[in-house]
Amino acid sequence: MIEISQARFDTPADLLQQCRDSLDRSFAKKGSGFPELPAREALWTEAEKIGRELRQHYEHLVVIGTGGSSLGGQVIAAQRPGSRLRFLENVDALAVSRVMHGLEAKRTAFVMISKSGGTIETLAGIDYLREFLARQGVDLKRQSHALTESPDNSLGRWAQQNKVPLTIIPRDVGGRYSVLSPVGMIPAAFDGADVKSFRAGAAWALEQKDLVANLMAQSVLSFERQEWITYFWIYDSLARVLGCWIQQLWGESLGKKTGFDGQPARRASTPMAGLGTVDQHSMLQQLADNVVRDKLIVFVRSKAAEGGHQPLEQPEFTECDSLRGHSIGELLKAEAVATEEALHRQSVSTLTLTVDSFDDRNLGAFFMTLQLWVGALGEHLGLDPYDQPGVELGKILTKEYLKKR
Amino acid sequence: MIEISQARFDTPADLLQQCRDSLDRSFAKKGSGFPELPAREALWTEAEKIGRELRQHYEHLVVIGTGGSSLGGQVIAAQRPGSRLRFLENVDALAVSRVMHGLEAKRTAFVMISKSGGTIETLAGIDYLREFLARQGVDLKRQSHALTESPDNSLGRWAQQNKVPLTIIPRDVGGRYSVLSPVGMIPAAFDGADVKSFRAGAAWALEQKDLVANLMAQSVLSFERQEWITYFWIYDSLARVLGCWIQQLWGESLGKKTGFDGQPARRASTPMAGLGTVDQHSMLQQLADNVVRDKLIVFVRSKAAEGGHQPLEQPEFTECDSLRGHSIGELLKAEAVATEEALHRQSVSTLTLTVDSFDDRNLGAFFMTLQLWVGALGEHLGLDPYDQPGVELGKILTKEYLKKR
Repeated sequence: MIEISQARFDTPADLLQQCRDSLDRSFAKKGSGFPELPAREALWTEAEKIGRELRQHYEHLVVIGTGGSSLGGQVIAAQRPGSRLRFLENVDALAVSRVMHGLEAKRTAFVMISKSGGTIETLAGIDYLREFLARQGVDLKRQSHALTESPDNSLGRWAQQNKVPLTIIPRDVGGRYSVLSPVGMIPAAFDGADVKSFRAGAAWALEQKDLVANLMAQSVLSFERQEWITYFWIYDSLARVLGCWIQQLWGESLGKKTGFDGQPARRASTPMAGLGTVDQHSMLQQLADNVVRDKLIVFVRSKAAEGGHQPLEQPEFTECDSLRGHSIGELLKAEAVATEEALHRQSVSTLTLTVDSFDDRNLGAFFMTLQLWVGALGEHLGLDPYDQPGVELGKILTKEYLKKR
Repeated sequence: MIEISQARFDTPADLLQQCRDSLDRSFAKKGSGFPELPAREALWTEAEKIGRELRQHYEHLVVIGTGGSSLGGQVIAAQRPGSRLRFLENVDALAVSRVMHGLEAKRTAFVMISKSGGTIETLAGIDYLREFLARQGVDLKRQSHALTESPDNSLGRWAQQNKVPLTIIPRDVGGRYSVLSPVGMIPAAFDGADVKSFRAGAAWALEQKDLVANLMAQSVLSFERQEWITYFWIYDSLARVLGCWIQQLWGESLGKKTGFDGQPARRASTPMAGLGTVDQHSMLQQLADNVVRDKLIVFVRSKAAEGGHQPLEQPEFTECDSLRGHSIGELLKAEAVATEEALHRQSVSTLTLTVDSFDDRNLGAFFMTLQLWVGALGEHLGLDPYDQPGVELGKILTKEYLKKR
């Protein structure tokens, strides 16, 4: 379902073995419950049931959450034309009215997600949305479902006090590793996705230790070459949101000041993402001609996006003559191949992953593969890929500012 | 409308003067026609007329174009809840059916934009979409309008042969500097935007030479500090698409191998972008704790996004107590201020821009300010900010691959 279809750098056997060992070790670490998710039957059954039941009663679903509580669901929504999912994430002045724009409030379900149960943006989103809907005579609480890791935190208590159904999400799965839990699967089921396929894809990925070790090794080699940006160039319309999901996973997991040993952590790259042929007309110039070779370009190609069943019969532009009898995906493929080759010839480091598609099963596999890659790479670099100590100061200062004001 | 509301680094007077000089010089350069756009009356009148007339006959508008022919329009669409604009940009197998999903083909107008008239993705998009619509009995050509720089290129000739109305766009304005021309303004007018306001905002920006010189100087200082990533952190829901627009402008203009003098160009940063409180739960960890201080974080705050008229009356979460009587925008503001302060305390370089809002007038001002900043910074660095030589090899290899196949 996922393979490294082209690697421009060989991975030494001893490095591969070290990566395998790190991968094995990472499974045993605290906070790394995500690889066990495919085996946790009850979570999948419950998520599917809740999502489908909500869909029976409502036309649309608004997910109130941020970061790991939202980005995975957004990828799933982007994968589905005509998706019925919306997301309240940023807390700007128009956010609430924007998210409800064009929706019938009475026919809209609300799923609020906060792992800790205390995420201020999410709680504020609930409070403001509740009052917004009340002014229209709609009771948010009667159309809601809450997800958090404990009944004894703010969101958990609020849900119980207000008879909002509550799903407890696994404490040992970090927010950015949680898309394959009810966090992502309730919205997916609502949207008509096949939750079982996500699960099967994730289970497949757990078996691909060679693939994951290879990806880890390519990253290690890239960091040794001083490539401090890893650019995921996704040749599929999913790219923008999938890129945001990858950025959170990679950046928050690997950007650490201190390692396990208390010493300054080993440096990891900053993650970026680009979209297919669009970024050939945007970022390519910078990637190709930047005076310092500071990036690894990870091409992510999809056979489905490069396919398609509708050939061009009668091109009217001479530029399109060579596409006669071929689907538009052939052009995408040609451009992906040519762009990788062009960058390689210009001494830019590349790596190419190919996925069969981004359907439910393959997306499940992709999510899990990336999580394993990042989690085990953190282990390999000697840092904790499951915490985020660097964001605390901002939270403290926010509270101080709000009180002082 | 736009100001530097906080700068953590002083700009020496001599550097500022050099930047002023570079800005003045850049106005005179070939290919830099974009500052003259606000003065070109006829372009604005025509764009407004065409956009409004199309809207009289059609419910939706699909823009077929890529890079600079598309990203600016996408920002304008993102600014408007319930926008009637859609964009065909990436050429994957589902692109055509996705863009038409849920639209009534007969009630949809099509605007095709290619500055050179030979952009293969755009021409292919037209060819595939034309056959897609023909299978539904709809004639693309009768519902279309074309934009290109000359009647004598592929798109120009096709338009004339097929009686598709044609607007000639200025040859001296590069694609990534063209949003304030009919390229962005026809879609804007269709969508009900006030084209005159965009123009007034752009004209305002032309007068702000001190602002632009200051922005340039901050960039120069940042590069001297070896900060090779410039991260635009936009506290407004517009961030994702506006970030893509900025990335193209900055990356394609400043990422050059060779300078005017034929020597290796001076290095410029890689542009990235983040979204308000969302990226506090994603990229912040990496920005704060990365072991090397390799970024300048440019906060972009919007007074409108931090405003709002609906105060929270009765918070149900104790975490939201301090928001009682305040709009949700107050939280956004508190978080922006606190996040900047937290990064500053952690020795991460920052700069804060504040805009009044991202309404039509302010967005016009923002577009022009950024274009002046980037164009003049290229001049200052001694490179051509209006070409993109690094993308040619990929185009050549694409053609070869398609022919060979």
